[in-house]
Amino acid sequence: MTHNRKKAVVLSSGGLDSTTVMAIARHQEYDLFSLSFDYGQRHKFELKAAKINAALFNAIQHLIIDINMRRIGGSALTDDIDVPKAGDAHSADSPIPVTYVPARNTIFLSYALAWAEVLGARDIFIGVTAVDYSGYPDCRPEFITAFAKMANLATKAGVEGDDPFEIHTPLIHLSKAEIIRQGTALGVDYGLTHSCYDPTPKGLACGVCDSCILRKKGFIDANIKDPTPYQ
Amino acid sequence: MTHNRKKAVVLSSGGLDSTTVMAIARHQEYDLFSLSFDYGQRHKFELKAAKINAALFNAIQHLIIDINMRRIGGSALTDDIDVPKAGDAHSADSPIPVTYVPARNTIFLSYALAWAEVLGARDIFIGVTAVDYSGYPDCRPEFITAFAKMANLATKAGVEGDDPFEIHTPLIHLSKAEIIRQGTALGVDYGLTHSCYDPTPKGLACGVCDSCILRKKGFIDANIKDPTPYQ
Repeated sequence: MTHNRKKAVVLSSGGLDSTTVMAIARHQEYDLFSLSFDYGQRHKFELKAAKINAALFNAIQHLIIDINMRRIGGSALTDDIDVPKAGDAHSADSPIPVTYVPARNTIFLSYALAWAEVLGARDIFIGVTAVDYSGYPDCRPEFITAFAKMANLATKAGVEGDDPFEIHTPLIHLSKAEIIRQGTALGVDYGLTHSCYDPTPKGLACGVCDSCILRKKGFIDANIKDPTPYQ
Repeated sequence: MTHNRKKAVVLSSGGLDSTTVMAIARHQEYDLFSLSFDYGQRHKFELKAAKINAALFNAIQHLIIDINMRRIGGSALTDDIDVPKAGDAHSADSPIPVTYVPARNTIFLSYALAWAEVLGARDIFIGVTAVDYSGYPDCRPEFITAFAKMANLATKAGVEGDDPFEIHTPLIHLSKAEIIRQGTALGVDYGLTHSCYDPTPKGLACGVCDSCILRKKGFIDANIKDPTPYQ
């Protein structure tokens, strides 16, 4: 079977983490195939940022797939539930915040796997991190390992003894500050990335949601000027 | 956490296998949540059959998700590749037919997992079979086992030590004839199911694609009259 270890599918949300991952994959001399999802987010600033960064890092193709998560529901990021402000993101009986989108990374990686198989790529990059993260179960290393194992059984590669798929998680053991330092060294313009869960209509970050708080603290800890346009 | 072992998400294509699975889940007294996908199939007769059977088996909800597989490509079932006729389905260098849709069952099960988590269901039914099957890698028992393991790490259930998800594959060790006998005993009207890859514009089965051949042989082996409307 034909495959090509120079091609990589990179999951990109246009956020700080996934844009850093794109810079890392580019630095490793992969040909980039950028994959974003329109999953009924409350706003489209993420998708705009993903498109800009795919162009800046010379992605060969940028694909946006509409996955209609609203039909399924279950999250403050896709439903009409208020996005919580700092310290208020968890319900009383759960360590997992209400912004958790059920099985989101499973669905994202499944599409990445499908596209990689069609492209003949074997390398998939995702910007999950188990350090400064929000407590989502599908960001943990054990989830990624289990996904990779499943992926190699799900596909032709697994049947035909071909070169296996690999899920790359270059940020998984990095703090937000370390991510920012690495991305800055590789030329990421974080002013062109979008992390806020609840931006103003013009796309300014709210500065007070969980995602903004983590991001702000990252720039402070990295001792790098925060270029994020806050409201 | 709230969950309910009486609710089941059933993947339904409107075909012979998945409709039998629906009958089995109903017989096991689950409340059915039927899930179908519009993945850019060449025709919509499958979706019509899925809707009819969800109603016949008293599904509480029937959800159709548009997953745009055409954007990714790579299969005779979604691309403009000719659907092969019997004996011609495999390319020279691969045991897997050109009708294979990359990572299809991975994507289908990922959505089922997301919906199940939102519903508080823990039981997912899928009509894969490793006996009279077409050689798709994502129909094998080892794939299903790996998916279930991944699913329980991907979700709140895995983090919070909740009752685990289970992927039910009641057909996996049955021949087509055994499936037809079981479904017939449980009241499936196979005249209202659709299996053909390449039907006529009015929805009559071609009778000569891989799927039709398997189905025809199943009725002969089961010694049950084939109610399929062939052209």
